[in-house]
Amino acid sequence: MFNTVTLRQKYTSKEFKKIESELRIKLFQLQQECAKHKLAVIITIAGVENSGRGAVANLLSTWFDAKKLTNQVFWRKDEEAKLRPKHWRYWAKLPMQGEVGLFLGGWYGEPMRRAACGDMSEKELMVIMHDKVKLERTLADNNYVLVKFWLHLDEKEHKKRQKIRKAEKGVCHFSHFEKENGKNYTAVLDTVAKVIPMTDTDFARWYIVDAYDKEFRDASVVKTLIRTMEEAIAAQILNKAKVDAQEDTQVIDSTDTGIAILDRVDLSKTLTKERYSERVKELQNEVYQLTYEAFQKGISSTLAFEGWDAGGKGGAIRRLTGGIDSRITRVIPISSPTDEELARHYLWRFWRHVPMAGYVTVYDRTWYGRVLVERVEGFARPEEWKRAYAEINSFEKQLVDDKNILLKFWMHISPEEQLRRFKEREQVSWKQYKITEEDWRNREKSTAYKIAADEMFQRTDTAYAPWHIIPAESKYYARIEVLTIYRDALLQALHKKNGHGEQCSAKIARLKSVKEITKGHK
Amino acid sequence: MFNTVTLRQKYTSKEFKKIESELRIKLFQLQQECAKHKLAVIITIAGVENSGRGAVANLLSTWFDAKKLTNQVFWRKDEEAKLRPKHWRYWAKLPMQGEVGLFLGGWYGEPMRRAACGDMSEKELMVIMHDKVKLERTLADNNYVLVKFWLHLDEKEHKKRQKIRKAEKGVCHFSHFEKENGKNYTAVLDTVAKVIPMTDTDFARWYIVDAYDKEFRDASVVKTLIRTMEEAIAAQILNKAKVDAQEDTQVIDSTDTGIAILDRVDLSKTLTKERYSERVKELQNEVYQLTYEAFQKGISSTLAFEGWDAGGKGGAIRRLTGGIDSRITRVIPISSPTDEELARHYLWRFWRHVPMAGYVTVYDRTWYGRVLVERVEGFARPEEWKRAYAEINSFEKQLVDDKNILLKFWMHISPEEQLRRFKEREQVSWKQYKITEEDWRNREKSTAYKIAADEMFQRTDTAYAPWHIIPAESKYYARIEVLTIYRDALLQALHKKNGHGEQCSAKIARLKSVKEITKGHK
Repeated sequence: MFNTVTLRQKYTSKEFKKIESELRIKLFQLQQECAKHKLAVIITIAGVENSGRGAVANLLSTWFDAKKLTNQVFWRKDEEAKLRPKHWRYWAKLPMQGEVGLFLGGWYGEPMRRAACGDMSEKELMVIMHDKVKLERTLADNNYVLVKFWLHLDEKEHKKRQKIRKAEKGVCHFSHFEKENGKNYTAVLDTVAKVIPMTDTDFARWYIVDAYDKEFRDASVVKTLIRTMEEAIAAQILNKAKVDAQEDTQVIDSTDTGIAILDRVDLSKTLTKERYSERVKELQNEVYQLTYEAFQKGISSTLAFEGWDAGGKGGAIRRLTGGIDSRITRVIPISSPTDEELARHYLWRFWRHVPMAGYVTVYDRTWYGRVLVERVEGFARPEEWKRAYAEINSFEKQLVDDKNILLKFWMHISPEEQLRRFKEREQVSWKQYKITEEDWRNREKSTAYKIAADEMFQRTDTAYAPWHIIPAESKYYARIEVLTIYRDALLQALHKKNGHGEQCSAKIARLKSVKEITKGHK
Repeated sequence: MFNTVTLRQKYTSKEFKKIESELRIKLFQLQQECAKHKLAVIITIAGVENSGRGAVANLLSTWFDAKKLTNQVFWRKDEEAKLRPKHWRYWAKLPMQGEVGLFLGGWYGEPMRRAACGDMSEKELMVIMHDKVKLERTLADNNYVLVKFWLHLDEKEHKKRQKIRKAEKGVCHFSHFEKENGKNYTAVLDTVAKVIPMTDTDFARWYIVDAYDKEFRDASVVKTLIRTMEEAIAAQILNKAKVDAQEDTQVIDSTDTGIAILDRVDLSKTLTKERYSERVKELQNEVYQLTYEAFQKGISSTLAFEGWDAGGKGGAIRRLTGGIDSRITRVIPISSPTDEELARHYLWRFWRHVPMAGYVTVYDRTWYGRVLVERVEGFARPEEWKRAYAEINSFEKQLVDDKNILLKFWMHISPEEQLRRFKEREQVSWKQYKITEEDWRNREKSTAYKIAADEMFQRTDTAYAPWHIIPAESKYYARIEVLTIYRDALLQALHKKNGHGEQCSAKIARLKSVKEITKGHK
């Protein structure tokens, strides 16, 4: 793998001067072009110690327009990152469209250093690299151009430079692993020789650069960047043309092809006001205690609400938050994105609100918008919403892996009940703002929404994050259901029994999940 | 203070029902009005335990449009806040224009609880409260409507509710201080009776609410909110009218009234290329070591660059970052704000990049834009940029108080040298993008900029954050100056001597500061 880059190739200063200005202008222009085509560029710069990673970063900061460039380094988990799912820190630092993100070491630096020190098994390394590929896949699919460099030096040159460096400015090791890596060239290279094949994909290529000669190294990096950016722009243009051509022929899929999952939901469930008032208070008191315990144990909750307009999301959420100490809860209403959100991967706006260890985030409408409203209204192209199922499953897996209780609720009502509630909203003065033209328009597309919801349930009802379809024809019944499900999930996460002395795992299995609804009708 | 609110006033359900819908509609409408007038609302809800703070927050979440409402609680310093200046967490969570921020306990909860436990002296409490008033002042001056509630119960009722609460859902104390507070009603009230007079201002009023009766409490809160929002909107309209009337008569102050500070700078300083190349390397090596040490001690650096167009900011910044490990450095280029930035206090976009303990943030253009470009171009109204000096001084004080090395550089060149560099930029192909029509326009306004800069130096050259005017006619000289000043500041912060064995405090005093320039000419 490294043989071809240890030729110690060189440019003379004169040769470099000749091409420098051309490369520089080209690079700068491509940055403007990328901005125009709504592309963001992420450049990973990794390499052997003293191979000039910092110098390359400095060169790129000079040649690109620095006003649209950010430097990011993920060399250690800071306190704020430690309290959140592992990829949170990468998501938090994603560049916007039109920007170049220089990621020194990228998301590879830390795991590679650890692996080279023997601090993780080969299997562990594979799992981590698999996650990186998934991350890169979803970024590449959503307007990110990814280029990864490994700056290479042969062992002799590496040793020589270490000596010079030590004499000149001394060596400051920012971590234990870094120090060890400096001593063990072979172990580092062995790791790189494993990591690169695991993560070299057509959407996020690795380039090994002969870094012996400064000029040759810089020219190699810049030429590669130019080629990659040109290709990305060409692909973007081609894709745009394809999409434009399709646009006229695209039809909304609105033929009901059978009984949808939602049609099988028993909507007759109801609850008296008396029973409701009593239960809601009891459950809130229970949830209050349990969320307090979960907080102390660093167990977070992510509660996601979807469902028909007027399905009672807001009311259910308020009964839920009424049972949690406000110090540890946040409700995130999802409406139109800000420009900072629009200029990034569509999941960024949800990542930024992911709860810290122990906290509770309630999303009023969620990332499922991608496969619901964006699909139905044509805001997302078919290939975009089709791949979103996998992207969402992967996002949710990360939450769950981080001691997060993830619950997804669909508040379900019949079209008749929806109509009744719409009309009621038009009648009651302080409810009028809650009903708009858009709600009526959405209602007309209910079949398309039902089809979209059906596919969503099938593709995202995972073992680790099942859907809970709540029969919400009776608001009282629905609110109690939501509170009960959350209560039981908390009990389970805390390894406790519920009020009746039952094991909670058993109780959870009896919840109104998609699985059960489907099974009941087979 | 509390006598008037212990009357246990009541509304019957019927009385409340009668006004409920009117209040609710009004509140909702005013939220829309505030959005239209670019106002953000921050509501602090504090009070005696079990006085219904959570219930009031829930009511407001229901009555306001929840899509434009955020809940924030600052009950403890999370890890991410601990690593930053004390007010960072409040700035980080500021609502946008058009939004309502419900701040439970606001920025009062934590200090009040501590004070009531005797955990701080009266003097300490006063200092903290003085800071809160300053924070509220700058928010109120920049489109924030502030309302603060203390929900009150007499001691007998307080004790009674504690008992009920304990029986119903138990008591979970989220902090030691909270637990102590619950036990000591008198101490809490004594503290409140100190805090309220210290922080009750015409721009951020406290309202003590009789919270004995649920309906009376809710109506009091909502009525107060309605009145405050109405007043704020009226004031905004009046102000707008005044500004519109002034607009025609407003002239840019461009008469040079004497010798400006910048005219006294000795621009003859220069350095040979040989000497430069040698020194830059030496200094970078020194700075590398020192920033490493500072990182380990949690000492941050905030390096702010201002100066004439083509003054050499970018070049100096790159020589600086060339001497710091990229893992701990971030360069923040300041150009046009995003919409999330525009919708908040103008300092918000700088607060969001304030370095964590040990890290280095370099701002390429800074918060001084408020009193430079925004003043000269009329983007900020006179009263806005005039009060900005104090706002900026207060912002910088907070950085310095947080173990931050704050250095402010003005890169100074003569108009002739600027012209030469502009022309050179037009000649060199890869520099062309750096020169725009705007640069030429700014150059024409150089007298206005000089006057603005002069006032800026005079008002913001503080003991804790002096300005360093760098004679930048020679790029080599300027870059070495910047590196030297930073090196010396690091030495001083680390209590070290410099290379010549001198005490650094002495060395620092010899720097090219505004003070020295002024003195030299008196």
